Amino acid sequence: MKKLTKKRSKKIGLPPGTPVHIGDEKTAPVTISVINYSETLLNERKLQKIEECFPLIDTSTVPSEGTASSPSGRSCTWINIDGLHKVDIIEKIGANFKLHPLTLEDIVNTEQRPKMEDYGDYLFLVLKMLTYGDKTHEIHTEQVSLILGSNFIISFLEDPGDVFDPVRERLRKSGGKIRKSGADYLAYRLMDAVIDHYYLILEKLGDRIESLEEELVTRPSQTTLHNLHSLKRSMIFLRKSVWPLRELISGLERSESVLIQKTTRVFLRDIYDHTIQVIDTMETFRDMVSGMLDIYLSSISYKMNEIMKVLTIIATIFIPLTFVAGVYGMNFDNMPELRWHWGYFYLWGVMAAIALVMLFYFRKKKWM
Amino acid sequence: MKKLTKKRSKKIGLPPGTPVHIGDEKTAPVTISVINYSETLLNERKLQKIEECFPLIDTSTVPSEGTASSPSGRSCTWINIDGLHKVDIIEKIGANFKLHPLTLEDIVNTEQRPKMEDYGDYLFLVLKMLTYGDKTHEIHTEQVSLILGSNFIISFLEDPGDVFDPVRERLRKSGGKIRKSGADYLAYRLMDAVIDHYYLILEKLGDRIESLEEELVTRPSQTTLHNLHSLKRSMIFLRKSVWPLRELISGLERSESVLIQKTTRVFLRDIYDHTIQVIDTMETFRDMVSGMLDIYLSSISYKMNEIMKVLTIIATIFIPLTFVAGVYGMNFDNMPELRWHWGYFYLWGVMAAIALVMLFYFRKKKWM
Amino acid sequence: MKKLTKKRSKKIGLPPGTPVHIGDEKTAPVTISVINYSETLLNERKLQKIEECFPLIDTSTVPSEGTASSPSGRSCTWINIDGLHKVDIIEKIGANFKLHPLTLEDIVNTEQRPKMEDYGDYLFLVLKMLTYGDKTHEIHTEQVSLILGSNFIISFLEDPGDVFDPVRERLRKSGGKIRKSGADYLAYRLMDAVIDHYYLILEKLGDRIESLEEELVTRPSQTTLHNLHSLKRSMIFLRKSVWPLRELISGLERSESVLIQKTTRVFLRDIYDHTIQVIDTMETFRDMVSGMLDIYLSSISYKMNEIMKVLTIIATIFIPLTFVAGVYGMNFDNMPELRWHWGYFYLWGVMAAIALVMLFYFRKKKWM
Amino acid sequence: MKKLTKKRSKKIGLPPGTPVHIGDEKTAPVTISVINYSETLLNERKLQKIEECFPLIDTSTVPSEGTASSPSGRSCTWINIDGLHKVDIIEKIGANFKLHPLTLEDIVNTEQRPKMEDYGDYLFLVLKMLTYGDKTHEIHTEQVSLILGSNFIISFLEDPGDVFDPVRERLRKSGGKIRKSGADYLAYRLMDAVIDHYYLILEKLGDRIESLEEELVTRPSQTTLHNLHSLKRSMIFLRKSVWPLRELISGLERSESVLIQKTTRVFLRDIYDHTIQVIDTMETFRDMVSGMLDIYLSSISYKMNEIMKVLTIIATIFIPLTFVAGVYGMNFDNMPELRWHWGYFYLWGVMAAIALVMLFYFRKKKWM
Amino acid sequence: MKKLTKKRSKKIGLPPGTPVHIGDEKTAPVTISVINYSETLLNERKLQKIEECFPLIDTSTVPSEGTASSPSGRSCTWINIDGLHKVDIIEKIGANFKLHPLTLEDIVNTEQRPKMEDYGDYLFLVLKMLTYGDKTHEIHTEQVSLILGSNFIISFLEDPGDVFDPVRERLRKSGGKIRKSGADYLAYRLMDAVIDHYYLILEKLGDRIESLEEELVTRPSQTTLHNLHSLKRSMIFLRKSVWPLRELISGLERSESVLIQKTTRVFLRDIYDHTIQVIDTMETFRDMVSGMLDIYLSSISYKMNEIMKVLTIIATIFIPLTFVAGVYGMNFDNMPELRWHWGYFYLWGVMAAIALVMLFYFRKKKWM
Repeated sequence: MKKLTKKRSKKIGLPPGTPVHIGDEKTAPVTISVINYSETLLNERKLQKIEECFPLIDTSTVPSEGTASSPSGRSCTWINIDGLHKVDIIEKIGANFKLHPLTLEDIVNTEQRPKMEDYGDYLFLVLKMLTYGDKTHEIHTEQVSLILGSNFIISFLEDPGDVFDPVRERLRKSGGKIRKSGADYLAYRLMDAVIDHYYLILEKLGDRIESLEEELVTRPSQTTLHNLHSLKRSMIFLRKSVWPLRELISGLERSESVLIQKTTRVFLRDIYDHTIQVIDTMETFRDMVSGMLDIYLSSISYKMNEIMKVLTIIATIFIPLTFVAGVYGMNFDNMPELRWHWGYFYLWGVMAAIALVMLFYFRKKKWM
Repeated sequence: MKKLTKKRSKKIGLPPGTPVHIGDEKTAPVTISVINYSETLLNERKLQKIEECFPLIDTSTVPSEGTASSPSGRSCTWINIDGLHKVDIIEKIGANFKLHPLTLEDIVNTEQRPKMEDYGDYLFLVLKMLTYGDKTHEIHTEQVSLILGSNFIISFLEDPGDVFDPVRERLRKSGGKIRKSGADYLAYRLMDAVIDHYYLILEKLGDRIESLEEELVTRPSQTTLHNLHSLKRSMIFLRKSVWPLRELISGLERSESVLIQKTTRVFLRDIYDHTIQVIDTMETFRDMVSGMLDIYLSSISYKMNEIMKVLTIIATIFIPLTFVAGVYGMNFDNMPELRWHWGYFYLWGVMAAIALVMLFYFRKKKWM
Repeated sequence: MKKLTKKRSKKIGLPPGTPVHIGDEKTAPVTISVINYSETLLNERKLQKIEECFPLIDTSTVPSEGTASSPSGRSCTWINIDGLHKVDIIEKIGANFKLHPLTLEDIVNTEQRPKMEDYGDYLFLVLKMLTYGDKTHEIHTEQVSLILGSNFIISFLEDPGDVFDPVRERLRKSGGKIRKSGADYLAYRLMDAVIDHYYLILEKLGDRIESLEEELVTRPSQTTLHNLHSLKRSMIFLRKSVWPLRELISGLERSESVLIQKTTRVFLRDIYDHTIQVIDTMETFRDMVSGMLDIYLSSISYKMNEIMKVLTIIATIFIPLTFVAGVYGMNFDNMPELRWHWGYFYLWGVMAAIALVMLFYFRKKKWM
Repeated sequence: MKKLTKKRSKKIGLPPGTPVHIGDEKTAPVTISVINYSETLLNERKLQKIEECFPLIDTSTVPSEGTASSPSGRSCTWINIDGLHKVDIIEKIGANFKLHPLTLEDIVNTEQRPKMEDYGDYLFLVLKMLTYGDKTHEIHTEQVSLILGSNFIISFLEDPGDVFDPVRERLRKSGGKIRKSGADYLAYRLMDAVIDHYYLILEKLGDRIESLEEELVTRPSQTTLHNLHSLKRSMIFLRKSVWPLRELISGLERSESVLIQKTTRVFLRDIYDHTIQVIDTMETFRDMVSGMLDIYLSSISYKMNEIMKVLTIIATIFIPLTFVAGVYGMNFDNMPELRWHWGYFYLWGVMAAIALVMLFYFRKKKWM
Repeated sequence: MKKLTKKRSKKIGLPPGTPVHIGDEKTAPVTISVINYSETLLNERKLQKIEECFPLIDTSTVPSEGTASSPSGRSCTWINIDGLHKVDIIEKIGANFKLHPLTLEDIVNTEQRPKMEDYGDYLFLVLKMLTYGDKTHEIHTEQVSLILGSNFIISFLEDPGDVFDPVRERLRKSGGKIRKSGADYLAYRLMDAVIDHYYLILEKLGDRIESLEEELVTRPSQTTLHNLHSLKRSMIFLRKSVWPLRELISGLERSESVLIQKTTRVFLRDIYDHTIQVIDTMETFRDMVSGMLDIYLSSISYKMNEIMKVLTIIATIFIPLTFVAGVYGMNFDNMPELRWHWGYFYLWGVMAAIALVMLFYFRKKKWM
């Protein structure tokens, strides 16, 4: 089972802005890939050292309102970092791009809530990339931090492997909108890729809800309950990743930062809609799962009732009869009935009468 | 059972604005019908090709604030498209009416939330048309997208068959308000037709709640529970379609778009009231259904109690008596009581006393 | 049982503003009564035809801000219509007083939510008049629509019989504030009469809650549960009538309509307070009723426990003893114990020991 | 048990502003006490007739913003009325101080919600004074109405006995802040005295929650449940008195009335904080009590389980054994086993084996 | 168990602004420590008398907007008071630093909600320092009050021992940001230390939730339930301490006080984020714990069902058989079956048939 909280205690007492990696310990190498593109050119590289990419990016000119809307002629750069455990890399990037110490701290602390912060020269975005473990039925969360500058994006991920391959494919094809637009449009496309993946998670969860509903109706068991519980748990975590996104994107849309061009805002409205849709579906799922818990409990109560009815019918018919039989099994010397010639057969009559009265009573009570 | 989510995964990785049909696969032909009308004329046609209708619509003049309020003299056109799976038709419409790529994407993706978007030249509305399956007791949802331009409306539906026939009838009769008013009034009438149908759904649901309540009181069973659950599920889906409508219509009413004339706003306030009424009734139903689940559970608990009382009364009376009878059925050589002449009759007295004490105890405990 | 929804389906497809009566079918005649009053005069009549009253009302002068505050010299008229099923009467009124078609539609459609609409020349108010059926314990709802013009009020009710008699009495006495004030004060008095009646409903509900609580403690039964459920249902409906009132009255208080004089606004604040009080008490009742359901369920569980304890104590003591008695009732040829002289008495000792051990165990478990 | 609603029905039909006492009927005499004080003087009296105090109060000068902040030189008067059932006294006060009829109506109608109303010349405050019945464990509510004028306060209480004695003590000592400040500061002190008493109620409730929690863990019974329920009920009423206070005090703090001096506003912020603290603690208690209901139900279910396990273990071991013993108690002529020499002892072996198998099964199921 | 409320009753009747210690009685001496620092100097002392530190602090110059942002040259002083039960110390501080009486009252009354108050010359902050008792699993709450002046901070704590040691360590090292910044930055660092500790509490709670979840699945018992309940209780108290913090910090961030420099506001945004994260995790925990209660109840119901099934199967098979055996144990003279030669063996056949029919029935009902 996934740990509920990551060990953040090692950070206690350090001054703010100290980048300490909070997350699982890792030994894998950190991968750095750079894509430099403009409308006409594309240059894609894997780097050994982070310093190699710094000369590529022209950070001298902060865009004014006018120039930002015509990024043609200037190239954009997307630096992607897979792995956050080598803190010196993060610090070098911080120094080169003049990032605030708190930004660096947030990048490596992978327990961040999704959020957007405007530091003037750059926007800092934190998202959660979700993947669904088909075997464990657990949702894996990975933090994606984006630094959006005037003509560059730096993305930080915890592990190799991401949902950005379609974006890379698009970039490689010349002539698309993505090659003509600036870094903000690329940021939108990355966010879109992350959110698109949420639909996939919802589909998986929806399938699971349906199969559990089916199971609930046909063969409810203790396992069904545990599955329901783990489903509910998944949704609590999903909720935690998705809800703050709403605020993030609407904040981005309304932000007055010159880093976001007007034409990009329409697209932000679109992913805002997607987020609302995801939240909506999530809430529907929540309602359904809690309804399923109710139905599980009611089913069990109903079944208990059925079992008790059977037990009670059998017991209330046969316990008095057994008593009667016991009476005539007694060994008293003087028991006149035992001497009657038809005593045994009379008794059968009496016992049948008792049984019939009982059955009639049960039928009246609608237990049968 | 209806699938919880539609397979949206095939869209992942495509650039935004790519119209991909999300919904059930269909092979039926797409039907295109056009109604062109003004105060004096009406022209109704079925088209083979979407291109045929383009010359009919004069999109040259965007209305200014003044001209919009006097649409007389200009004709309006209503294009209705039944079927969204032929994406090329949608794309041709998009190209002719200069619709934003994101609008086209939203039209074919039938998982949209009801919403209103103002693109300046046109308003884009998404509604959910609901129909009630009398046999399955399930609510069928169909997405209705409306493009409201200055003198045209384009409506997109998933399947043939809709709730707009009364509106068509009205249009055919000359002299009505609908013929004298502009495209915005027609849009209002179409929305009104959709929302009017929600009342029908509510009536059906109300009838079903009443019959279930009746059933709950007279003959609760496992089926009652499953019906309650499916009713609850229906209402979760209804809620999802109706809640966002509130925001949609109030947004439309307050919108500053020149496409909505002042006289139409009064009517929008009217359907806003209807929406609130629908939501209100829906919430009342929700409260009632959850109250019914409580009463179901309480009923079952109460019945269990009744059953257990009967079992306990029978068992606690006869188990001790059976023991006593068993004692005198033993075969010890030396059991003096067995030799007493009236032993058997004394024992009957003792057993009757035990039974009476028990009965008295139960009566004191109010179990009988 | 009251129907959950009224058949609104017959309205589907009709153009907006078509007045169609939604409600129970009625054959009773429609009663029209008119009271025309000023500070010095009072004229009260029953009309055969609605047209008779039109000349009485001077609708020519729309009040300006100044004249409205000095209505002396001008007379006010209150027209009361009992019965909405004769649509032609409503239409004639509409034509004479120039009411908007949507107003007429709302008057006859008795499923309206309480609301206030400002049509400039007149205010349109919808309220719910509630009466409590002492036998059925059901709340009867009747829609009251008020048209407040500059010097007239028209009230529409579904059935004969209303809560306005004290207001009529006041009007008949000369010299009261009501005779000196304008139509807006009369409107306030009518609303006050309706809301005052809500307190009566709350008193009845409060009495019922108390008697149910008493019943719950002393003799809970299946009937208690059904009464609780019907009480809850009553409160759901009450809530639906009362909640929107809050908005209605605060809307009226803040409204900029010249039809509401400044001196009347203080009184509106007073009935606003009353509404809040009613809502508050209602919410308290809701909390109490849901607490009662919990206590009902807990009581039943507790009682089940008590019953099971008794059954278990009796059964666990006597079942082993019966087994022992059964053993010595067997007919094996070679059973040495049966031959012992004191065997029978030894066995009684053993059985008493078993019973004592059991009792000790139950006492330790605190079951006795 | 306290009645849920007071009989307000006798008010129905009366014109607004008619003061009718709503509350328990009383015969006790009404007590009127007056304290007239300034920085240097103090004059305390009990009055027979309310008219006696009117000349004492100088109502001629309504304070302007400047003079209000320097009340030195002017004396303040606090009139306290214990008992609301003599309506004529209230009416005389109303006439002398020119109170609005609606104010008088609210003073005698003791079902008011806590509220603050600004009538220009005076502020009208309604509070609820709570006292805890140590024996009944019920909270007694008494309405306190305050009229705050420029240099006088009139307080109205339902019964003799109040929480204001410490304030009186302070007033009697010369040199305190209270003697130097104006009527608004006295009003604050009275409100503070009322709210301070809420802490006492919370302490009592807290003690009761703790003793119930203790009881729940050690010896839960039906009484525990009823105590929980009555505790919950107490908190519903407490909540009703305390929640509106928040709005009242923040309204007073932000009010633009010249009757509240700037220096007093800091103290109002302080009692606002107290109110929030009371509400906070109250909500914590609510959460705890509802958690206790859950634990009660779970405990009962758990105990039921334990009981059922014991019953089932005993029954499933001995019922089959009793059957076996019963078989060999039959009187068939031809039962070979009965004739075997060691038959009886073999059977004991078989029965021991059955019992051991059963015990092994229960241990595997973790029932023992 | 911790008391729910502290005895505040002794305060009743005292005038506002009277500092009375509300909390546990203590006899330990009050510790006063002072740290005086600037960029170049550091002076740390323990004081015997609070008066000794007053000359150290230059309170003459209230900072203007400009000077506050350049605190270099001026030294800052941090006075830390451990122990609130010596009210005279608090009063002396109040007199020297001109604190409002209400501030002094709030410092010693340790039942405050976290809050921020701006008194112009100083800001008054109340926080809750939480520590987790590893043995008792209880959260210990200690009130931290901070007075933030232009160049001094006074912190008040209830007991010796705090979470500020890392801050002291930082201060002792020269050259850090903390030595260069003003008193507001120190205040931020103290708040940060308190909030950082909340993560530790959350980690502990998270571990406990996980171990309880494990326990719930493998070996649920009455103790599990009590642990769940005490966990829930801990979270109610945590919630009470953390929720108001959100408002406090955002108030501080938006405050217009000249005591907060612009550069410090970025850091306040950071701890605001931390607070939101803590709240988020807390709410997730709440959801999980309430889900666990549900699963506990469902588990118990399910187990009850299993137990009842076993009991019912055994009882319904053997009770009828025992009856049959009882019948042939009767001693009637005339019982033909007993005389049949194969009677006994026939009966075994009949009994086996009965058992098989029963088993078949149970299998059909899916009880086995």
